[in-house]
Amino acid sequence: MASTRIREARERDCADILRMIRELAKYEQLSHQVKISEEVLRADGFGENPFFHCLVAEVVPESGELQGQGIGTKIIKKVAEVALQKGCSQFRLAVLDWNKKAMDLYKSLGAQDLTEAEGWRSFRFEEEAMKEMAGC
Amino acid sequence: MASTRIREARERDCADILRMIRELAKYEQLSHQVKISEEVLRADGFGENPFFHCLVAEVVPESGELQGQGIGTKIIKKVAEVALQKGCSQFRLAVLDWNKKAMDLYKSLGAQDLTEAEGWRSFRFEEEAMKEMAGC
Repeated sequence: MASTRIREARERDCADILRMIRELAKYEQLSHQVKISEEVLRADGFGENPFFHCLVAEVVPESGELQGQGIGTKIIKKVAEVALQKGCSQFRLAVLDWNKKAMDLYKSLGAQDLTEAEGWRSFRFEEEAMKEMAGC
Repeated sequence: MASTRIREARERDCADILRMIRELAKYEQLSHQVKISEEVLRADGFGENPFFHCLVAEVVPESGELQGQGIGTKIIKKVAEVALQKGCSQFRLAVLDWNKKAMDLYKSLGAQDLTEAEGWRSFRFEEEAMKEMAGC
């Protein structure tokens, strides 16, 4: 098992966070959806009223291959711990239907596929539609 | 058309907000999922670092039937306006797959069904799974 420490993100992590957002989007074949910059990440996450909270996993690179070392499981467990501390009674994740590895992991940790079980679908309004609606 | 005013929610709206959350959940046949109380709504939405922001539509009850008067459209347009002001480049809604009226409305305003288009699914961890993961 890799040695992993999970901690709250700091403002100086934003360059790495953006890099990982881009790496994930590339894997998801959705690179064109990444519109955020490091500057906006800093402002949104580390201002007076943060829009998001973020955990960072520091992994000691012992053995080359990071897959299968339980890092994802550790992160999700930490999210559960933090969510309980904040008084949440549930938390949700969005996942692409071809990402079987991720779905299997979430299910093995006790998650339910709400799209399958209850019929939840996700709808997105993009900037163009928003501007039209707002009359800009 | 009904006369509608959309404004930021205030703390004293929480009883009405909870009533509407319960009415919506009943319509969605998901009443058992409503775990929040008025007290927690007040704390989460109107403390120092609010967990949520909320708009309230005040409708002058002119004609009995509220359906089909464009109130939903007005609310979504207001959300678009507020989201643009806050620097958002998109916003998302969750909708049940049998709620054709809602899906048709969102599509007519320019939304895309991401579950259909990109394959996004929603996964939920409930309190029991969270406690198990956190070792409580």
